[in-house]
Amino acid sequence: MADEPTSRRAFLRQTAAAGAGLVATAAALRAEGADPLIAQVQDYASAFGAPVDATPYGLPIRHEAHVVRRNVEWLTESPVSSINFTPIHALEGTITPQGCAFERHHSGAIELNKQDYRLMINGLVDRPLVFTFADLMRFPRRVLTSFCECAANGGMEWNGAQLEGAQFTHGMIHNMEYTGIPLRVLLEEAGVQPAGKWIYVEGHDASSNGRSIPLDKAMDDVLVAFFANGEALRMEHGYPVRLVVPGWEGNMWVKWVRRIGIYANAVESREETSKYTDLMPDGRARKWTWTMDAKSVVTSPSPQAPIQHGPGPMVITGLAWSGNGKIARVDVSTDGGVTWTPARLSGDVKPKALTRFHLDYIWDGSEMLLQARATDETGYVQPTKAALRAIRGVNSVYHNNGIQTWWVKVDGEVENVEIA
Amino acid sequence: MADEPTSRRAFLRQTAAAGAGLVATAAALRAEGADPLIAQVQDYASAFGAPVDATPYGLPIRHEAHVVRRNVEWLTESPVSSINFTPIHALEGTITPQGCAFERHHSGAIELNKQDYRLMINGLVDRPLVFTFADLMRFPRRVLTSFCECAANGGMEWNGAQLEGAQFTHGMIHNMEYTGIPLRVLLEEAGVQPAGKWIYVEGHDASSNGRSIPLDKAMDDVLVAFFANGEALRMEHGYPVRLVVPGWEGNMWVKWVRRIGIYANAVESREETSKYTDLMPDGRARKWTWTMDAKSVVTSPSPQAPIQHGPGPMVITGLAWSGNGKIARVDVSTDGGVTWTPARLSGDVKPKALTRFHLDYIWDGSEMLLQARATDETGYVQPTKAALRAIRGVNSVYHNNGIQTWWVKVDGEVENVEIA
Repeated sequence: MADEPTSRRAFLRQTAAAGAGLVATAAALRAEGADPLIAQVQDYASAFGAPVDATPYGLPIRHEAHVVRRNVEWLTESPVSSINFTPIHALEGTITPQGCAFERHHSGAIELNKQDYRLMINGLVDRPLVFTFADLMRFPRRVLTSFCECAANGGMEWNGAQLEGAQFTHGMIHNMEYTGIPLRVLLEEAGVQPAGKWIYVEGHDASSNGRSIPLDKAMDDVLVAFFANGEALRMEHGYPVRLVVPGWEGNMWVKWVRRIGIYANAVESREETSKYTDLMPDGRARKWTWTMDAKSVVTSPSPQAPIQHGPGPMVITGLAWSGNGKIARVDVSTDGGVTWTPARLSGDVKPKALTRFHLDYIWDGSEMLLQARATDETGYVQPTKAALRAIRGVNSVYHNNGIQTWWVKVDGEVENVEIA
Repeated sequence: MADEPTSRRAFLRQTAAAGAGLVATAAALRAEGADPLIAQVQDYASAFGAPVDATPYGLPIRHEAHVVRRNVEWLTESPVSSINFTPIHALEGTITPQGCAFERHHSGAIELNKQDYRLMINGLVDRPLVFTFADLMRFPRRVLTSFCECAANGGMEWNGAQLEGAQFTHGMIHNMEYTGIPLRVLLEEAGVQPAGKWIYVEGHDASSNGRSIPLDKAMDDVLVAFFANGEALRMEHGYPVRLVVPGWEGNMWVKWVRRIGIYANAVESREETSKYTDLMPDGRARKWTWTMDAKSVVTSPSPQAPIQHGPGPMVITGLAWSGNGKIARVDVSTDGGVTWTPARLSGDVKPKALTRFHLDYIWDGSEMLLQARATDETGYVQPTKAALRAIRGVNSVYHNNGIQTWWVKVDGEVENVEIA
């Protein structure tokens, strides 16, 4: 599980054997002359490129125009109460740039400004408070990285393989480095009264998207955040202030946060009763299913990222995460879960944050049923979809963390499939 | 040095005493009626906001239009062989978004595409090789976060305080999470011959910007990188492939990398003789000064981020980094280096990466001579500018890691100053 490419020697041996086109022998080159390789490489640029005042704030190069968030029109009735998906099939590492990080709005992304922004804390407190943005900037800050996953990520897949691509099956997730104020600090400033056991958080948007959070969680690792990946939150991510609720479902990460009320009981709002509860086979619903359990997905190869070369060395990569702590290991299967090989966890492994895994693999060119399976530091192992359905049925759209299967065909194309 | 706001209780006490406007007493509220705070907060939005198909790739909100990289026209003769600066005074956390990360080009930022891209490895190797981009994607990858600092960062300040703002005095730096191939893997693929002791790396741009790197470093932690902060490198950061040379001066992080040659000796190119060497008082020059020594700067308050409130609680924050490993501690002085207070290191502390520090401070409203001083895990302590000049004089524009002083005035305005 170390960070070094442990299979490198095997990789090199296999490359020499199978990686046609990768290796030109020194002997062949000597036969051709002094430096025949030069002919294979473009000349140096013959003109100046763009000056340093060309793009005060840059965007991706036009060749990467396909790496964008996408929505699925038929999925919801209106694009102002809808979702789009992070292009995880085309990303690497762990950070999600704000520009392509998925959005979920209940009444559209609203534009606020810092001057008029106010955050109210009221209810069962000693000192009801209203903070300006400038007030907030005077409180102690903390930096943490956390994934934000919509509870409905993978929701369409409860009923079988439906969406073609990791972007659509698993892309309701992003992972950013946040800077903000521990909510505990603001709650202590207001003075939570002994009867206060829950907070209720509302956004400035028309839906308000109110959610109840137990006081214990609010006092633990929740942030009132204003920076993501080093810069101000983008408008669509809650500018100027959003809640960060590490490890818990994205719907609770209230954007454009307007008010935090402290109450003796949960409010039982629409967003935690008719929505964001998990309908079971017997018609009853699980509620307070806040934590996002351990999950993983192979991002490449995947339907939008097919194998575009023949047999030989390749990189299998993906993401794993757990709302209960750190990822302890990720195993990869190429035979639909019959046998498993541990993947490398690459870079830092942080609690409640996306973890990148890699498996350096020699593909023999035959079909694969490709799967990843995450295990977190609590010992929890990501279940199969069959195991999930045996307990929870197929009525819910939330909390599907079942193992995903990609059918890799001999031509390298990849399809989203279910296996019995 | 823990990550928790250790001075929080003191902060809260002082807030109650000094933070006028922050606190409304419950008694006053009860006198006014049921929920008078509501009147202080904007209504919920009365209309839908932007739909999820509005911005497939988003940009910062227009209110943050000042948070951009900026160049200084008089600094160089031409904007195609020039520099711009990261707006570090307005950023938080540790990640630098690609869109506002500083650029340094020697002949402008060139546009390549993946289809035509080639990387050549030749010289003292058993198997000269040319890789396509698709070839590279088949090799084992690693993820690491590293700062990239121009050797000339702070160079204008050798002769005294000259540039008004942390963006301009210290903004030739960025910090990203990279994914790429350990260069060691590619060099072993080519088979470095025993006589090979140096690599020489060239870019595809017209300047080629060739730099020599000792083989030991090349085999250690150098990456051939294609992703930064999760997505493809931007054009101006070397799309599709750049070198990442953790802890070493930015000029060696060759962009649009075209060729890596292996040689017995350093090439002694323009970029490592007449440039990127450090002219000493006696007219001779230090060379091979690759490592960026430990350094820090207060990013807020700073000339572009003045204090905009009266006395009372405030956050002093900044960045620290070392090319020799992790930051061990950062101390902050408000009296020009007479007395020092340890700051909190916030978030993860990674080797050869930017580290964020915070000091929760109660400002009494008087003038401050604000400084930060970094100590790295080797025990190296960031020197004063006077100590640096005593040895190196003022002829060089490179490797100025002296302690920066901001004069904070009673009105909150901040000026770049030198102290005797």
